[in-house]
Parts: sequence; C-alpha cells; structure tokens
Amino acid sequence: MKELFEKARATSYKLMNLNTKVKNEALAAIARKLDEHRELIKTENAKDLKAGVEAGLSSSLMDRLKLDDKAINSMIKAVNEIKEQTDPVGSVVDGYKRPNGLYITKIRVPLGVVGIIYESRPNVTIDAAALCLKSGNVSILRGGKEAIHSNACLGKIMEEAIAEAGLPEGVVNIVPDTDRFRVTEMLQAKGYIDIIIPRGGAGLIKFCDENTCIPLVKHDNGICHVYVDKDADIEKALKIARNAKVQRPGVCNAAETLLVHEDVAGAFLPSFVECTSKDGLEIRGCERTLSFVDVKPATEEDWRTEYLDLIISIKVVSSMEEALVHINRYGSGHSEAIITENYTSARYFMDRADASAVFVNASTRFNDGGEFGLGAEIGISTQKLHCRGPMGAFDLTTTKYQVYGDGHIRE
Amino acid sequence: MKELFEKARATSYKLMNLNTKVKNEALAAIARKLDEHRELIKTENAKDLKAGVEAGLSSSLMDRLKLDDKAINSMIKAVNEIKEQTDPVGSVVDGYKRPNGLYITKIRVPLGVVGIIYESRPNVTIDAAALCLKSGNVSILRGGKEAIHSNACLGKIMEEAIAEAGLPEGVVNIVPDTDRFRVTEMLQAKGYIDIIIPRGGAGLIKFCDENTCIPLVKHDNGICHVYVDKDADIEKALKIARNAKVQRPGVCNAAETLLVHEDVAGAFLPSFVECTSKDGLEIRGCERTLSFVDVKPATEEDWRTEYLDLIISIKVVSSMEEALVHINRYGSGHSEAIITENYTSARYFMDRADASAVFVNASTRFNDGGEFGLGAEIGISTQKLHCRGPMGAFDLTTTKYQVYGDGHIRE
Repeated sequence: MKELFEKARATSYKLMNLNTKVKNEALAAIARKLDEHRELIKTENAKDLKAGVEAGLSSSLMDRLKLDDKAINSMIKAVNEIKEQTDPVGSVVDGYKRPNGLYITKIRVPLGVVGIIYESRPNVTIDAAALCLKSGNVSILRGGKEAIHSNACLGKIMEEAIAEAGLPEGVVNIVPDTDRFRVTEMLQAKGYIDIIIPRGGAGLIKFCDENTCIPLVKHDNGICHVYVDKDADIEKALKIARNAKVQRPGVCNAAETLLVHEDVAGAFLPSFVECTSKDGLEIRGCERTLSFVDVKPATEEDWRTEYLDLIISIKVVSSMEEALVHINRYGSGHSEAIITENYTSARYFMDRADASAVFVNASTRFNDGGEFGLGAEIGISTQKLHCRGPMGAFDLTTTKYQVYGDGHIRE
Repeated sequence: MKELFEKARATSYKLMNLNTKVKNEALAAIARKLDEHRELIKTENAKDLKAGVEAGLSSSLMDRLKLDDKAINSMIKAVNEIKEQTDPVGSVVDGYKRPNGLYITKIRVPLGVVGIIYESRPNVTIDAAALCLKSGNVSILRGGKEAIHSNACLGKIMEEAIAEAGLPEGVVNIVPDTDRFRVTEMLQAKGYIDIIIPRGGAGLIKFCDENTCIPLVKHDNGICHVYVDKDADIEKALKIARNAKVQRPGVCNAAETLLVHEDVAGAFLPSFVECTSKDGLEIRGCERTLSFVDVKPATEEDWRTEYLDLIISIKVVSSMEEALVHINRYGSGHSEAIITENYTSARYFMDRADASAVFVNASTRFNDGGEFGLGAEIGISTQKLHCRGPMGAFDLTTTKYQVYGDGHIRE
C-alpha cells in the first residue's frame, strides 16, 4: 500500500493542472468502455452475486449489488452527466486589488488524493472515480468485499479508458484486496491522502472517525422529517409524505417521522393510514396520534431511529415551533420538509430547520446529487464542515490564493 | 460544561437568522467598550504579565501576552474591520430551476457552535469572538492559562457589549478555567460543538486530532519557501527573501528555506549573507551553497524544520522543477513564493506549488487575514478541507440547500 500511496501523491501533482478537455475525453472513454464491456461486467458481477447468495445476504443487499443492463445504463448516464458538468477547477471564486497594490485571487484547485471507503454498491466505484477525475483528484477506492469482482472489473475498465485518453497511470486506484487492515492503512496514510470519505453504516463511520487524523467528510445517517403544517394542502401532504417514506424506504433521504399540526391531524391521519395500508407500511404514533388512528404506539426511541425500512413514526404537534424543536433535536441534519400553502410559514421553516437541505412542498427524496443536477454524488454530507448535502465534483475541490506582487514586502 | 454546551446549542438557533444590522451593532459596541475599558484591560493583563515573569516565560511569549495601548488599538481596529466586511450569511451561492420545476437554491448559513482552543495570545479572544459573531456563530473560547485574567476581562467586556446590543446571552463563551480537562470536554462535545479550531503548537494540534470526532480546522505549522528564479530581479529577491524571514521570524508565514537557482546563486548569495548579517540571521546552506558563501552546513533535517527563529536554510537548485519537487515534498502547504521577471515561470510556479497561498514577487509574510482584507483571521488553515489560508468570517459558514416545490414527489 505504501507504494500505492506514494504513486498516488506523485500522480496528484500531474492531475492538478490537467485541462478540462483531457479529463472529459477520459470520462467519455469510460462511458464508452462500460458500454462495450457489458458482458464482462455481468460475468464478474455474477461471481459476487453467487458468493452473496452463499453468504446469505439480504434481498436488499443483493439488490444493491446487482449490475444488470439497467444498472450499467445508470452508470454510463452518470459518467456522461459528470462529463457535461462545468469543471470546477480553475474557477476564480474571489479576487481584488489591495490598497498596497497586491493583486489577490482565490481559485478552485483539486484536493489531491481522495480516499473513499464504501460498502457493497459497485456503482459507487464508477460514480466516485468519475467525480474525482472530473475534479482533478486521484482516487483510492476501497469497496466492500461483497463486490470485489465487480469492483476489480470496473477498475480495470476505467484504467484502460484513462490510459487511452493519455492520462498518467494511477489516476484511479482500486485497493487490491478487501482485508479490513487495508482500511486502517488508508486511515493512517496522512500526508498521502488528503481527505477520506467513508460511505456506509454507522459502524464504518465510527471506525473511521476514531482511527484517523486525515480530515473526513462523513455521510452519516438520515433521520428526516416531513412536517404537515396547519395550512397544508392535504392532497399534497398525503402524496409527499407517502413518497418520502414508501418510494424507497431503505435510503438516507427517506422520511422516518411525520410531524402533523393538530389542526389538520383529523383530516390527514386517517387518509394517510388508509393510503399507505396497501404499501404494508408500519406506523407508530405518539399518544395524540393514537386518538385519531389505530396504530402502534411510538416510544422516545422511535424519534431517534433511522428505520431504513417500511416503518414510520408520527407525532402530532401544537405548533410549527414545536415541530422545529423536535427536528433540531432528533434530526440528523439531512433533509427536512414542510407542507404548507402559507408563504410566511414556509419562509420561517426554511430558515430554521437545521439540515443540509430543506424542502417546501416536495419530497425529502429529492436530496440527491442526480436530482440536484450534479450528475452523481459521492454521498450526502451531514456534517457542516467543507460541504453539506450531495457531494459532487465541486465539493471535491479546495481553494488556493494566488497573489501577484511587484517586490512587495511587509512593513 | 454540559450546561454551557446545551446553552450554546440553543443559542445557536437564535443566532442563525439574526440580521446583519444587529450583529454589526454588537460589533460596534465591542469596539467602543474595548476603548472605554483600556485601564481595566491593562490592569488585568498586568496580573498575567506578573505571573508570566514568575513562571519564567520567554521574551517572545511575554511579548505576545502583552496588551498595551498599541495592542488594544489593534484589537479595536480588527473588530471595526470585521464589522465593515460583507455578511457572508444569507448569500445565495448557487440557484437554478430543475427540468421538473423544482427551484433549488444554495445559501450560506452559520456553522452553529464553534470551539476555539488556543494558546497564549489574548488578542485571539477578540478576533475569534468577533469573527464568530459576524458569521452568526456561538463561540466557545478556551485560551491558554498564561492569559487567564486578560481573557476573562475581554470576555466580560464582550458580554456587556453584546447584551447592550440586545443579543441573547451566551453568544460568546469563555471557558471559565484553564484546566487541561476542559479541552478534553470540548473535544468530546459532539452534537453540541460543530467545529473545533485548534490554534497553537504541534502538541495541541496532535492532542485535538487524536481525541475528537468533531471536525477540525487545523492551523498547523508553516514551512514556507522563497524560490529565487534564474530570471529574478536580484534587488527584489534580496528585499523579499530578507523580509520573509527577518521581519518577524517567529510566525507561521515566515520563510524557513530559500531555494536559489544556480544561475543566480553567485549574484544573490553573497549579497544575501551580507545584507542579513546585521540582522543576526543564522544561515545553513546545502553543499552547493557552501561553495558560494561561508555559512553553516545544512542537513536533511533542516528542510523539515520550522525554526520560528532567526535561522534560515538555503538550497541551490538546478531548475524550477527541482524547486517545486522540494516544495511539495518538504513544504507544509502554507505559503510559497517565486521571485522572477519571467511571466511563464511565474505562471508555471503559481499553478504547481501546492499551498494555501502562492506569491510572485511578494513576501510570504502577506499570507494573513488582515493583509488579505478579511479584517482578522481565526488562523491560517493548512488543511485542504473546508478552507485554506486565512480563515475569516466567510469560512465560518456552511451551506444549506433550500428547495421550493409544488407537490413534487420522486418517481
């Protein structure tokens, strides 16, 4: 690994000043080769799927692991969309002349070497590598052992494409085995890796947090709320609340708790129970909820729980203020939505719910790099440092001051 | 401390949406009260100075500790300059309408609660609190024990000013004692403190790094270089190289190593030795340097050393490329300068030296919040995550997506 790290560091200096055109040609080559190598990808992926069945992986894990034509099309689409993005590198974000005549400019530059530690989804291998390439970074990718054959194959395809586009070797690095020790080696490669992005369960995040001095961008859990305001359009509220939970219950931007204003609880709750009964949704309600509908009782623990499943908790609140206190107390700073027709309430909520993205009259499920137009995302940051929300190519850059003097010294 | 943390968190929600006018009034009140309470500040500072003498603090530490009228004027000036800055909070950094009609905006918001752990300079108490206030953050300030009376006094003055301006209590919090255990408590206050900024020696940075899961912005060491190119104007080179080291040798943006192109070594080195001899500068040269001037020999260890003293190392290089390799290998990513009259060389160097700020024909000493026009700085970040270079009010904010829908659900 030492050798890999040293090479990555050296390669990062070569990438730092690569022109957009060259990077985009490499991305185009990756998209093309993914298309050409469909059968190879499916063959290698089948090995992982077979091992997954033998290891008794859950159906949702197997679903995430699978690379069929639809999944390959999505990867190709993501790479092409990333290619179409504006190159963040080189943009001048600030600039001025100081009273003493110094010209100061602040420009965007690549981070350098980005380490990504993730769990089973092999499409992350493509998304992460493509976003790093677009932003001029060397990537070191350490995927889960369940996807080892798929990841190795995708890595090889990218390597070929990148070489064809004339880029130096070692732009994308797949960690060659999935021994847990490799994660520790990455976490300790200070001076070689500039940032580490852990993407996975709470255990992985905690392990990274406790074992590294390299700055992390954490993609932590999602305890998201939909607040149905007293001035909500009930039809919109039903549609959005259902979508936020049911459309894909196992992801971080799915809602875990509904907060319903008491004035509309009578109109909203029975219809919500009815319209989600066919979805097989389990509902856990606070005491006041139980006076409107016949559902399981919720406990304090429910407000802190990311179900990642077809379960939702509901709390009836007396005011928007009570909803906001609940959100800022139990929320994970991921995605928060208000359903209302009242302009002032919408504005108030948007300014006060403390999260990476706040929505009015839209599903929390939109907090996503693709949906926000970033092409793809390397994850959704729930920390406030560096970037917040879907992390795309822009967030894989840092800044640098370039200062132009004429013999200036400090007095 | 638990109580302090909980109050800080609650106060942070109140600050989040404070209007610029109110924040600026509080800053104006701080500047005014600093001026009114000069005698009190000097009296309290005298207690620290007395204890410092008894503890045998070095003259440079005593110098940093001292609050005389000049130092008080500087603090007042910094607060006024911070007040004059544009409020970063609320600025819309991006915005667009998606094909499905969702309006997406990305705005700047405060980080929330900022913890600052610093060593003896009491002016940091004012700079840090004022920058946090400007950016809508609650600050928790833990200064060094050497400055305990000064810091407590400055804290009380700010508290008074902030209350007068009608802001909630607890916007600025001085940790009430300087027990080392308080640092650990801050480092473990996850969920209460959003970021921690350690500002001090390598020991403090390392301790923070190893004992927290809260994101850090590190203000680490400064191993800065001045590269005298073959096309340098020798007069400018002498003036800038001397200034970069001698004007204030104990600070992070001072130069530690000169890299001199072989073509100008004969013209530059003897003059440099001569013009710095009256400064008492100790020079350590590589083997090639020794063939031009009679100075101490440098070892490999010198290239890695932040002297923070009247010592400089010199290396003669055969090309700019060799200089860049040296910089990217031994530099700490702080400040790098090239002295040249050649446009292409300047451009090449500026793009390839990997540091928070790169300079052409100007002293590295300009890498400073005040010099860059930020009013003051909370430190100079040498990490790439979140912010790089002088950290001002802008860098004490994060972003938030505000998304406006009309019943949007994800298909």
